[in-house]
Amino acid sequence: MSDRELSFWGWGHADRFPDDEERRELKTRLEGMLGFPERPLLDPPTIDAVSIPDSRVRVPDRLSGFVSTATEDRVRHTYGKAYRDLVRGFHGDFDAAPDAVAEPADEAEIAALLDWATEERVAVVPYGGGTSVVGGVECDPDGDGSGYAGVVSLDVRALDAVLEVDPHSRSARIQAGATGPEIRDQLAEHGLQLRHYPQSYEFSTLGGWIATRAGGHFATVYTRIDDFVENVRMVTPAGTVETRRLPGSGAGPDPDKLVLGSEGAFGVITEAWMEVQPRPPYRARASVHFGDFEAAVDATREIAQARLYPANCRLLDRNEAMLNEVAMDGSHVLVLGFESTDHPVEDGLARAIAIAEDHGGDLPAEPSYEGPHLEDSDDAGEDGGAGDDRGGSEGDWRSAFFEAPYQFNTLVSLGVIVDTFETAVTWDGFPALHEAVTERVTAAMDEQCGTGFLACRFTHVYEDGPAPYYTLLAPADPGRELEQWRPIKAAASDAIEEHGGTITHHHAVGRVHRDWYEKETPAEYREALRAAKEAFDPAGVMNPGALLD
Amino acid sequence: MSDRELSFWGWGHADRFPDDEERRELKTRLEGMLGFPERPLLDPPTIDAVSIPDSRVRVPDRLSGFVSTATEDRVRHTYGKAYRDLVRGFHGDFDAAPDAVAEPADEAEIAALLDWATEERVAVVPYGGGTSVVGGVECDPDGDGSGYAGVVSLDVRALDAVLEVDPHSRSARIQAGATGPEIRDQLAEHGLQLRHYPQSYEFSTLGGWIATRAGGHFATVYTRIDDFVENVRMVTPAGTVETRRLPGSGAGPDPDKLVLGSEGAFGVITEAWMEVQPRPPYRARASVHFGDFEAAVDATREIAQARLYPANCRLLDRNEAMLNEVAMDGSHVLVLGFESTDHPVEDGLARAIAIAEDHGGDLPAEPSYEGPHLEDSDDAGEDGGAGDDRGGSEGDWRSAFFEAPYQFNTLVSLGVIVDTFETAVTWDGFPALHEAVTERVTAAMDEQCGTGFLACRFTHVYEDGPAPYYTLLAPADPGRELEQWRPIKAAASDAIEEHGGTITHHHAVGRVHRDWYEKETPAEYREALRAAKEAFDPAGVMNPGALLD
Repeated sequence: MSDRELSFWGWGHADRFPDDEERRELKTRLEGMLGFPERPLLDPPTIDAVSIPDSRVRVPDRLSGFVSTATEDRVRHTYGKAYRDLVRGFHGDFDAAPDAVAEPADEAEIAALLDWATEERVAVVPYGGGTSVVGGVECDPDGDGSGYAGVVSLDVRALDAVLEVDPHSRSARIQAGATGPEIRDQLAEHGLQLRHYPQSYEFSTLGGWIATRAGGHFATVYTRIDDFVENVRMVTPAGTVETRRLPGSGAGPDPDKLVLGSEGAFGVITEAWMEVQPRPPYRARASVHFGDFEAAVDATREIAQARLYPANCRLLDRNEAMLNEVAMDGSHVLVLGFESTDHPVEDGLARAIAIAEDHGGDLPAEPSYEGPHLEDSDDAGEDGGAGDDRGGSEGDWRSAFFEAPYQFNTLVSLGVIVDTFETAVTWDGFPALHEAVTERVTAAMDEQCGTGFLACRFTHVYEDGPAPYYTLLAPADPGRELEQWRPIKAAASDAIEEHGGTITHHHAVGRVHRDWYEKETPAEYREALRAAKEAFDPAGVMNPGALLD
Repeated sequence: MSDRELSFWGWGHADRFPDDEERRELKTRLEGMLGFPERPLLDPPTIDAVSIPDSRVRVPDRLSGFVSTATEDRVRHTYGKAYRDLVRGFHGDFDAAPDAVAEPADEAEIAALLDWATEERVAVVPYGGGTSVVGGVECDPDGDGSGYAGVVSLDVRALDAVLEVDPHSRSARIQAGATGPEIRDQLAEHGLQLRHYPQSYEFSTLGGWIATRAGGHFATVYTRIDDFVENVRMVTPAGTVETRRLPGSGAGPDPDKLVLGSEGAFGVITEAWMEVQPRPPYRARASVHFGDFEAAVDATREIAQARLYPANCRLLDRNEAMLNEVAMDGSHVLVLGFESTDHPVEDGLARAIAIAEDHGGDLPAEPSYEGPHLEDSDDAGEDGGAGDDRGGSEGDWRSAFFEAPYQFNTLVSLGVIVDTFETAVTWDGFPALHEAVTERVTAAMDEQCGTGFLACRFTHVYEDGPAPYYTLLAPADPGRELEQWRPIKAAASDAIEEHGGTITHHHAVGRVHRDWYEKETPAEYREALRAAKEAFDPAGVMNPGALLD
């Protein structure tokens, strides 16, 4: 882990919180560009001023070497990084702090903790980067303990090593607590990369990605972490489970797929063999601008269905393009990127551009290319992965992408509701879903906040449908933010659910999406999952309330 | 279903069984080419001579419209198409016949049957094409009923319709009892194809493919039926389960992935939304010959890791090439094929060939190309899918591929043990696994049969490892075939299990692989599966003995 101090209430490093001057600039932009009413400039909280309830657990001596009940540890493990977490944190509300924080050094300590938790009926919430936006690392949503003797947050970040590399099979065995940069740095010694860059990349961990089926860098084929997993190892109250490391198998329902998305409800993921690859020296990128959103969607669909397998194929609607300063002229922007470790990719990009142009797309700038086959290649060499796509709109987009969560801190401090939600739906179903989401979320923002702003992009595309991702902004009344936010979130989730989308393509279910997850999945399937949970976790101590009721 | 009569004991259409002349030719070839001792020419059985035990179940009136206890129906649903099934069938041994055969016309009849079976504790074995090679549709392996009042084979082939097509999202809703050709013909009306061609394509069904995670046409990306499934519908004793139709989701563990590979142990799959596509007019194909197997494996690995995404990338070792008459000069042959609905694919093939040549591969013939962009394209237009790849070695290979199961009938009638088994393993692990399989299976054939023949091919390749597929031939003592076969099968399975492979990449577990499946998977995972099964099937009537003990 980095030595730089992390924010105890918001995203990322504490020293990144902007000064008042910067905040005033953003405030002016919101007022001018979005027509928001004048915003207050609220002071962020200090950790010394935070008070939390007394811990309800007595940590036995055999665990006290790695389990802490210190206030600061407990405060720092209270929330994830959802809007509602930042709001609660910003207002200094840490009443839901866990009773203790465990930082085990190895699987034996995890198993010892689970044994104790099972005996004492203490809930255990696995914690990786703490970047959940769905209440996945939240300890006690109702504040009443729900029949548990207490709650322990189990922080696995000490398990941060790349343990083994098999370059021949392009795979690596990685511990679950390793963050994006920790994986990057250790694999770089072998000339390899995982190439999984969720927006939380800097802080989130492999175990968290697997537990939540995190979406990453690739818009096609390798869309979620699922597609890189060869096996998993998980410590459960019933024992330690390790699936066989395999490139593929047809032996029964895929055991890895039961762990992927289990959100800590079965056990604690401790390591996994993952597919890795060298840095791809061949790149080709372009951005295509569209005046018409429907035409842009059609172009994107056709590119996805052409099986050109672009690494990037991200359609930003005009609001999203503006928000990220990728295009300020009202264009919808399709960001295309191809990459290969093996061969030039100009042809794939050319074909994708041709399809886009057939649908009325314009190329405001020449495509950019990198590769050892190009005489004046602008390839800057090894740069370690995330942030290594710098060309044109794609570069702007990418830096905005990793910057966005920091903006959320600032927006919260300005009393702005800022939230994102995402789904996946068939191409056929998208227009009606998009219309319903737009209408109902806009109406909810208007009703709650007087005004609001909604932007949409496709983060991933499949042959049978896109994964649309929405960002909303609305001016809140400080102190009433969550009261105003809740109906907006419900409007978005209802619109998605009623129009055939999934409540989440990659953010996970957690506690926030559970009601809609129940509408999306057959009751008999959830019963089967619950039965499976009971086999792994007979006492029901693993992350109760996440995923399953 | 076709009106042509199916063999009651062996593969496919009954009228395809060769005359004595043809059989003598194959016999001579075995004796000459493989050095097998002289083979007898045994007469195939007649259905009239078969006797089976009395049915143990009394079918209630409300089910009698679609449940039969007629001898012929019961005989025809006794076995799958594994070697051991053909042997037992050939010798007229149908003692394990089910007590009744249900042929429901719709889900309501399936649900009524499951209700009755649950009340009466009658085992229900879902039956699609009946092409299982792992004892997946076998009714009662021990002949003692294992505590059940009887066994019903549930044949779903009447549910054979394509119900709905969404061309915009390139998807179709298809009933589970539809066979490969039935799906092909119905989708052809919409200009679409599923492009899933397992070796059993002519007879096997969508439901069977999903229940067993069948491998198909594509060597990369879309390797198994799993990759085409958007949702599934399954009638279980606990109720009818339908997952949401989605291009992708991250909401909890993927519910479709729990059904995929469930082998009828949870319920009866009745329909699924599947990804489909137009026929790809662009093709490029070539075969590369290698003198050295290790070099051929390295080339194949590098092509897989280059993410060129070939549709075909099938490496045949020299024995496999000879067996299929693709190359008789002792070459190992890499069959490469690229296809696209959208764009020419010559460049991908050229790059794959270049990689192969770097590893010492030779091109005995020019690559062949098809496509609307070629002036003298030899594209023969719509031909409906399976069997539409006709060029060069790939064409030879493909016709041999669909012909092979018929050869099995003949070989069984000549007293030859003929079996196939398959796995997947990392590239790093392959050499040791291959060596162990070769040594131990050869030794077992020598010990049991005096001699034997073993061939290997890769059916699918991943960036992290191949899926090797083995075919074995050995001369048996008629009447002692299964006694001789069992140690050979055990040698193969042990070698795979002990060298990090999976007991099956796409044939499924069934009853034949169960012991090794138990070694491959964590006990806690199987407990979780068992608990899930109990949620769907509280009385345990669904396909008992398949997959789970």
